Amino acid sequence: MFSEACIQKKAISRQDCANKETNQNSTFVNKTEPAIGTFHNDEHNITKSSALLSRTPNLRDSDQVTMRRTLRHYFLDTFNTYESLFDCLASENAFYIKPISLRHPLIFYYGHTATFFINKLLLARLINERVDQRMESIFAVGVDEMSWDDLNEANYDWPSVHDVKAYRDKVRTLVLDLIDHAPLHMPIDWENPWWAIIMGIEHERIHLETSSVLIRQHDLSMVKSSPNWQPNNYSGVAPENQLIHVAAGKVRLAKDKTSPFYGWDNEYGVHDAEITAFEASKFLVSNQEFLEFVEAKGYQTAEYWTEEGQGWLQFTNAEHPTFWRKAPDGWYLRLMTEEVCMPWDWPVEVNYHEAKAFCNWKKQQTGHAVRLPTEDEWYRLYDIASIRDVGAAPAQANIHLDHGASSCPVNQFAQGEFYDVVGNVWQWTETPIYPFEGFEVHPIYDDFSTPTFDERHNLIKGGSWISTGNESLHSARYAFRRHFFQHAGFRYVISGEINSVPASHYETDKLMSEYAEFHYGDEYFGVPNFSKALVELAVATLTKHQLDGLPKHTALDLGCASGRATFELARYFDQVTGVDFSARFIGQAVQLAKGETLRYTLIDEGELVSYKSRSLAGLKLEDTKHKVGFFQGDACNLKPVLTGYDFILAANLIDRLYDPAKFLSSIHERLNVGGVLMLASPYTWLSEHTPRKDWIGGFKKDGETFTTSDGLQALLSKHFCLIQEPQEIPFVIRETKRKFQHTLSEVTFWQRTA
Amino acid sequence: MFSEACIQKKAISRQDCANKETNQNSTFVNKTEPAIGTFHNDEHNITKSSALLSRTPNLRDSDQVTMRRTLRHYFLDTFNTYESLFDCLASENAFYIKPISLRHPLIFYYGHTATFFINKLLLARLINERVDQRMESIFAVGVDEMSWDDLNEANYDWPSVHDVKAYRDKVRTLVLDLIDHAPLHMPIDWENPWWAIIMGIEHERIHLETSSVLIRQHDLSMVKSSPNWQPNNYSGVAPENQLIHVAAGKVRLAKDKTSPFYGWDNEYGVHDAEITAFEASKFLVSNQEFLEFVEAKGYQTAEYWTEEGQGWLQFTNAEHPTFWRKAPDGWYLRLMTEEVCMPWDWPVEVNYHEAKAFCNWKKQQTGHAVRLPTEDEWYRLYDIASIRDVGAAPAQANIHLDHGASSCPVNQFAQGEFYDVVGNVWQWTETPIYPFEGFEVHPIYDDFSTPTFDERHNLIKGGSWISTGNESLHSARYAFRRHFFQHAGFRYVISGEINSVPASHYETDKLMSEYAEFHYGDEYFGVPNFSKALVELAVATLTKHQLDGLPKHTALDLGCASGRATFELARYFDQVTGVDFSARFIGQAVQLAKGETLRYTLIDEGELVSYKSRSLAGLKLEDTKHKVGFFQGDACNLKPVLTGYDFILAANLIDRLYDPAKFLSSIHERLNVGGVLMLASPYTWLSEHTPRKDWIGGFKKDGETFTTSDGLQALLSKHFCLIQEPQEIPFVIRETKRKFQHTLSEVTFWQRTA
Repeated sequence: MFSEACIQKKAISRQDCANKETNQNSTFVNKTEPAIGTFHNDEHNITKSSALLSRTPNLRDSDQVTMRRTLRHYFLDTFNTYESLFDCLASENAFYIKPISLRHPLIFYYGHTATFFINKLLLARLINERVDQRMESIFAVGVDEMSWDDLNEANYDWPSVHDVKAYRDKVRTLVLDLIDHAPLHMPIDWENPWWAIIMGIEHERIHLETSSVLIRQHDLSMVKSSPNWQPNNYSGVAPENQLIHVAAGKVRLAKDKTSPFYGWDNEYGVHDAEITAFEASKFLVSNQEFLEFVEAKGYQTAEYWTEEGQGWLQFTNAEHPTFWRKAPDGWYLRLMTEEVCMPWDWPVEVNYHEAKAFCNWKKQQTGHAVRLPTEDEWYRLYDIASIRDVGAAPAQANIHLDHGASSCPVNQFAQGEFYDVVGNVWQWTETPIYPFEGFEVHPIYDDFSTPTFDERHNLIKGGSWISTGNESLHSARYAFRRHFFQHAGFRYVISGEINSVPASHYETDKLMSEYAEFHYGDEYFGVPNFSKALVELAVATLTKHQLDGLPKHTALDLGCASGRATFELARYFDQVTGVDFSARFIGQAVQLAKGETLRYTLIDEGELVSYKSRSLAGLKLEDTKHKVGFFQGDACNLKPVLTGYDFILAANLIDRLYDPAKFLSSIHERLNVGGVLMLASPYTWLSEHTPRKDWIGGFKKDGETFTTSDGLQALLSKHFCLIQEPQEIPFVIRETKRKFQHTLSEVTFWQRTA
Repeated sequence: MFSEACIQKKAISRQDCANKETNQNSTFVNKTEPAIGTFHNDEHNITKSSALLSRTPNLRDSDQVTMRRTLRHYFLDTFNTYESLFDCLASENAFYIKPISLRHPLIFYYGHTATFFINKLLLARLINERVDQRMESIFAVGVDEMSWDDLNEANYDWPSVHDVKAYRDKVRTLVLDLIDHAPLHMPIDWENPWWAIIMGIEHERIHLETSSVLIRQHDLSMVKSSPNWQPNNYSGVAPENQLIHVAAGKVRLAKDKTSPFYGWDNEYGVHDAEITAFEASKFLVSNQEFLEFVEAKGYQTAEYWTEEGQGWLQFTNAEHPTFWRKAPDGWYLRLMTEEVCMPWDWPVEVNYHEAKAFCNWKKQQTGHAVRLPTEDEWYRLYDIASIRDVGAAPAQANIHLDHGASSCPVNQFAQGEFYDVVGNVWQWTETPIYPFEGFEVHPIYDDFSTPTFDERHNLIKGGSWISTGNESLHSARYAFRRHFFQHAGFRYVISGEINSVPASHYETDKLMSEYAEFHYGDEYFGVPNFSKALVELAVATLTKHQLDGLPKHTALDLGCASGRATFELARYFDQVTGVDFSARFIGQAVQLAKGETLRYTLIDEGELVSYKSRSLAGLKLEDTKHKVGFFQGDACNLKPVLTGYDFILAANLIDRLYDPAKFLSSIHERLNVGGVLMLASPYTWLSEHTPRKDWIGGFKKDGETFTTSDGLQALLSKHFCLIQEPQEIPFVIRETKRKFQHTLSEVTFWQRTA
């Protein structure tokens, strides 16, 4: 069907498609106003207007009546614009044929944004029942490419377009009724049930963009031109790119819950960064500029590609950007509903891997440290370009559908010294998305961001021509898998090495998460934090026995697990070493010691989880982080260097050792004479950890009861004396929201005497 | 070595061994005083005396000085008499050759009673260190026949007799020093550390008897006559046995901790029994009387033997009592150090199986319901014979070594109308040993009785000629495996069926024990009993919602487990049915409902356990036992008869069902309209109990959080309305002394509306 390519193309410029030599002096031609506008509010009687698509509203600076009016407008504008997008489909059939194999067909996305409203309104308790059980079951869950193997077509028996439209109408009526009549207490903030309404609208704005990408990926036979979705007709000669120096500076992001604009969970919190000076390309990389890479056999040269990029390349056999098509008469570009002769001055649209490969090629060509910007560097550009969020006037950027339904030349919108810091196409960054300090999930949408905190979703910044509402804001943070296509391209920078990306993923391993919570999390049943209680008891005991004059230079925390006691000991000791057999546990401690945030999910019930995060700062332990060191090691076979300690703690360790007697018989060698060994254990002997023959107590010996306490005395008395009577310290490990282990650990203090 | 039998025999009477026809009129011959007496207190300078062996002392009715003197005497008398028993061994070799393959050689028993003192004194903290680590390791643990596979000779490197004697001397000195100088607070009772001293002495008295049996089982070449251990020379014609009528009556046993005499744990508590009238044999069964059974091919006739007895018979190929030997010239009887012509008027010595087979043969011969007496029937005989415990004067019974080192004729000691209710040989009963109500283990000897509470150890009563100290008392309760030999015979009775034996064994299965404690045991962390709290909440809720006027005829406790809530509901409902999938759990409830005591061990630490027991009476639930019924059943597939209930409780059930939706969708059918369903669950969904696809909540449904609470609403709303907001009730399950599960169960009440 592509046999006569130019049948399907529109003349976008006077240039011949075959003529890739562009005239540097050509100017915009056929300059027309963009075809996009808003639909007036009259609910079902849609009339096109040239007014701008409504902006995401200020949710604080308004009285209740005005707010209802604003939201009515914002909702209808969104709902109607979204529906109009589907006018670009050529037939009913086009709703049911999948544009790409790993996503649902568009009929799903047509229904999905309506169902999303219902689901969130139910969770917010703004409504109590469903509109249509069947529709809402079908349209609830989208498909993330990550979970492609879940997509079983056999499960879907899609309803007709007519029925889905009727369903959408019911939802429209319901939402409008809520906006008009539901009780409203201003302001609308994160905790306000009305947040769910804005969430529904902003969610639909996102799908406005992603559905436009799917339409663009549909076979040309499946789409048709729509008067509401006309591309930009500007094109000319691509400008030669230049590098512009950017001075060092600071970036601060600190959206908090008093912000008047809706935000997704990942935008909140505080982030400060120091940016060293760098150079950045004045323009986004144009099709013209990218062509050099294609022609330099960039797609055939593995060395330019990351390992992950090579994998993608082998899988797809790509030879050029996905929306490019090479015909005998030259290059064409696929837009949403048509194919056009290549507009060489428009930004190239690629995935991260292609952008990265280009940079690596450029680096080799130039000898400069070319790469993509980080998110922080993008914010630095934003700051120096003195950009502001879109307002009532048309944006000074190809964004928010203010200037047509396509890209435009990379040299159309100047922003300070740069062009397109915001708008035109999204810009890939080197930064995998991560949560800021203070991040919390929103209770009615806990899987918006968290599944992307996996170091495999990179941030895209700046928005595209169809990025509207929240998407267009400075604070917006969207991320996609690196091989994913959006209306996204890139700008390159020359700069130094990138600091390692902050850990972003949530620990979901049950044991790891339980220990993170056990060491750093909440208290349950009023039982104080165990590690903290142990260290406080240690200090009190040393004082009580007038041993507080002993040196407190070094302490060893054996079996430190996630490390809390190590940090707590560092409040009192100059240098504390944490040792655990498990490198995974130590990983948590190391992460905290680096100043990073430990994130983990806790099982609430079945598969439902809570999201938690902790940092040393929040625990007032930040001052200890330079006094601790963590090492993987075996308590029964310690490295020789671990010696000369003034204090050794072994908490919940001895009944998990494979040879506790070996440990206890030699531990004095690691402690200075006069130093103190603190043991804490519930004496839960289990053959899975300690062979029965190696238990040190908890059995009948020579016919009589022989407790672990007896065993400790027998093993330690040669080198230690027991300072005081054993006592029990409780601890609680949370397994689910309602199920806990509640244990008593017997604590003994032993002073080394010989 | 038995080729010339009579070389080894002594003339015990003028009768010819070959002449088994006895003269009914023959009288005792060669009547001499017995050779047994005590050894005077002079520690190492033992002089034989004709004084009686000291009796177990009154531990209350004495001042401290007198008590010390009494104990010194009692200890030395015991220690010395025990040592003198080993004079019966013919050589050092005889200490090391095992008399029977499944027990240790006698050297062990020589050392063991001394080591036992040390172990118990250590536990009682009367001493702080061992006398001899090596000896005490070797001599600590005896061998119960039950654990014969633990007996690995390779582990033993026995010390010399000389060394053991030296060790015994050290222990003697130590104990005497304690008796003379350790602080003593009167009275010496169960809690008093000095109890350990009496325990050691009484323990040695037991071994005095059991070692005498081992000596009797030794090869004749291994033993020698000792002046201190001369058998009785009385013998004559065996009397014809007669049956004597015993009127119905009551037996009460109620030894409590204020008793002035030492007792083993199993003697304490309260036991009341109503004894129906029966007939009992006047005499113990004599060798003469038993010969009829032997000659009637009793050992060759399987039908007389119990199944267990047949097993023993096949294993041993026994054809007559173990101490009998048939020689060409007639029958001989093995005594401790010699073999004698059969004294036909002495009591036959057999194990339980032989005694039982004799009774069954006799039953067949006579058509009467012949059997062994129960323990209660033995006490009834004791009562009507007006017997009293041995005092300062020689016993009116062949007991306590007062009348020689062997049995004597069955018609020598009349006690009321009967002979030998007490003394001569122990008498097997039909009763497996069990603990009385109120039984507790003694903390320093927790495995004296408990391992025998297994329905495989039958009580022997009355004592033998060598039963001294506690063994000789009315309250004594000793039990042995039914195939075991002691100086034991029997008396038979004609009586009705025996009531089923009270359950005596301790549940040791971890899960079963944990549930017994969870339902009936102690409270931990101040969390009230869960079942009780649920039922109290149910009553309060019905009242609060003015539903307390609803009928309270019948209630159903689904997933009742060990049944506590069933009993608690029966405080308020006329009839309560408990149903559980597990017959083992229900077994606990049924046992309690029968008025029996539930006994179980709880893990303290490793293999160490605590012993617990609970009965309805102790929980003030005795009145409910006639209102409950327990059935095994599947909550997802209930029997049709289980319907028409006014109230249904399902506590901690739904997340353990394989199909909770099936259960919830049909449970209304079992409830009267207006009736109330109470659910309690921590919603701990685990695929091991409920396949993931059958969870009713605890997952994302259509992309949104769907809690179990949502699932309950969805499944129940057709037939029920939720009475009030869910609330959480905590429960604690003890796993070890220091490790607990602490869980919150969400409780909802649902009234059936349709």
